[in-house]
Amino acid sequence: MAAPFLITLKVAFGDVDCARILYYPKLFHYCHMALEALSEDAFGRTYAHLLSEDDCGFPTVRAEAEFIAPIPYGTELRLEVRVTHLGTSSLGLAIDFFDDATDAVLARAQLTKVCVTMSGFKSFPITEEFREALLRYSV
Amino acid sequence: MAAPFLITLKVAFGDVDCARILYYPKLFHYCHMALEALSEDAFGRTYAHLLSEDDCGFPTVRAEAEFIAPIPYGTELRLEVRVTHLGTSSLGLAIDFFDDATDAVLARAQLTKVCVTMSGFKSFPITEEFREALLRYSV
Amino acid sequence: MAAPFLITLKVAFGDVDCARILYYPKLFHYCHMALEALSEDAFGRTYAHLLSEDDCGFPTVRAEAEFIAPIPYGTELRLEVRVTHLGTSSLGLAIDFFDDATDAVLARAQLTKVCVTMSGFKSFPITEEFREALLRYSV
Amino acid sequence: MAAPFLITLKVAFGDVDCARILYYPKLFHYCHMALEALSEDAFGRTYAHLLSEDDCGFPTVRAEAEFIAPIPYGTELRLEVRVTHLGTSSLGLAIDFFDDATDAVLARAQLTKVCVTMSGFKSFPITEEFREALLRYSV
Repeated sequence: MAAPFLITLKVAFGDVDCARILYYPKLFHYCHMALEALSEDAFGRTYAHLLSEDDCGFPTVRAEAEFIAPIPYGTELRLEVRVTHLGTSSLGLAIDFFDDATDAVLARAQLTKVCVTMSGFKSFPITEEFREALLRYSV
Repeated sequence: MAAPFLITLKVAFGDVDCARILYYPKLFHYCHMALEALSEDAFGRTYAHLLSEDDCGFPTVRAEAEFIAPIPYGTELRLEVRVTHLGTSSLGLAIDFFDDATDAVLARAQLTKVCVTMSGFKSFPITEEFREALLRYSV
Repeated sequence: MAAPFLITLKVAFGDVDCARILYYPKLFHYCHMALEALSEDAFGRTYAHLLSEDDCGFPTVRAEAEFIAPIPYGTELRLEVRVTHLGTSSLGLAIDFFDDATDAVLARAQLTKVCVTMSGFKSFPITEEFREALLRYSV
Repeated sequence: MAAPFLITLKVAFGDVDCARILYYPKLFHYCHMALEALSEDAFGRTYAHLLSEDDCGFPTVRAEAEFIAPIPYGTELRLEVRVTHLGTSSLGLAIDFFDDATDAVLARAQLTKVCVTMSGFKSFPITEEFREALLRYSV
């Protein structure tokens, strides 16, 4: 049964700006941390392993985010990750950022990734194994 | 006469990932550095001054980027910043990233900013002085 | 009974450099994350709370680190934090970085912190409550 | 005639913490930017070129810094870099951080680097060409 992938992250001191809220480029850093965690959950191996052993990576070709409310230092964030698109070699992700204490949505991001070889940075079809694994988050 | 605002930035070691290309969240950090430089050029005062003395900031409510080609470590980037929208208190920016050596476009970003008080994070109308200054980049 | 404070951290993609090992300034970012976690364990409140509600912070006046072995992307790190000095308002910390899988020591850091007011950045004596809490890690 | 190597850097928005001063791990990021600039000045090639074409890098084995005064957002920093040690394959650097407007010293860092192959991360003797180039900053 499909369900979003969930992780929690606490907003760190080094990630906030002088207004004491998340420096907005760091939201995309958190998106990458979500992808790394999802890789382990979906494929049973770390993203590091994917890159070095499977010669496979998912660079970003498109990223967008909507910032709905300021995200203060120390917020316990809950990220819900959904697979919104599965093309031959492209992968669409939607990542919603919630305040885990109040369930308020603070930001929404959408990413388009492409499956490439790390050796040559050439796109190639997402394998059946990965495709099935990713469909679990397709809600 | 209107013209884009230009700055050059060299891709630093600490900004690339293990594929030796720009870690994509850092593109948005570069966007913010462009905004800081534009602040000085447009308003004749630093963004730091804006925040602390003018009680005025421009947080991001929407950010998107298209990554057209990998951006290798050491690339001398030329950023061209255009004002694409000037609402009552909202500001749209388009930032194109070029390889300064070859003129190839590597990425394009678009940001929506809102003019707010730093003390209360309340939006307020962009002043006439700022409006005129920003129109210089409206091409 | 005194014992070091322990946390585990996984080396993230955005924290490694193009040699696929931890970008060394990020070691100090990890030190700060350890301090934030220790704050909760020791004082029963987050570092964010300390800063905003208790008007108390611990900026760094001295930092040093020895890098014993490269720290590859994906490493599960175990940080062991010890209180090595407790002056009137100064605090010495030693943070050892282990590969949690092999127990190999990868780096060692030492920090000198000062207890200050966040409002005026003036040093003041560490309270008895904090002093007792910190002595738990003094081994 | 020997003289320190100089660069100026402006403290960026993304590099300060919620106290509106430089997040201290970023000081070491600035140290690396100084090394990258010194590489071009000393060796006539970028650090990126050194890594990829000369199979040569200078990872850090020891780093320390003393933080003398808070470094506010927007400060125009002047970094003075000195070569303090030139061993067979080791390199000692001292980097002093000045407020360029007032000449006040804000921080001092010291780094020990080792010359290694990037392919195997093996130390090797600094070449005569590099040795002579580095001695220019040995004051």
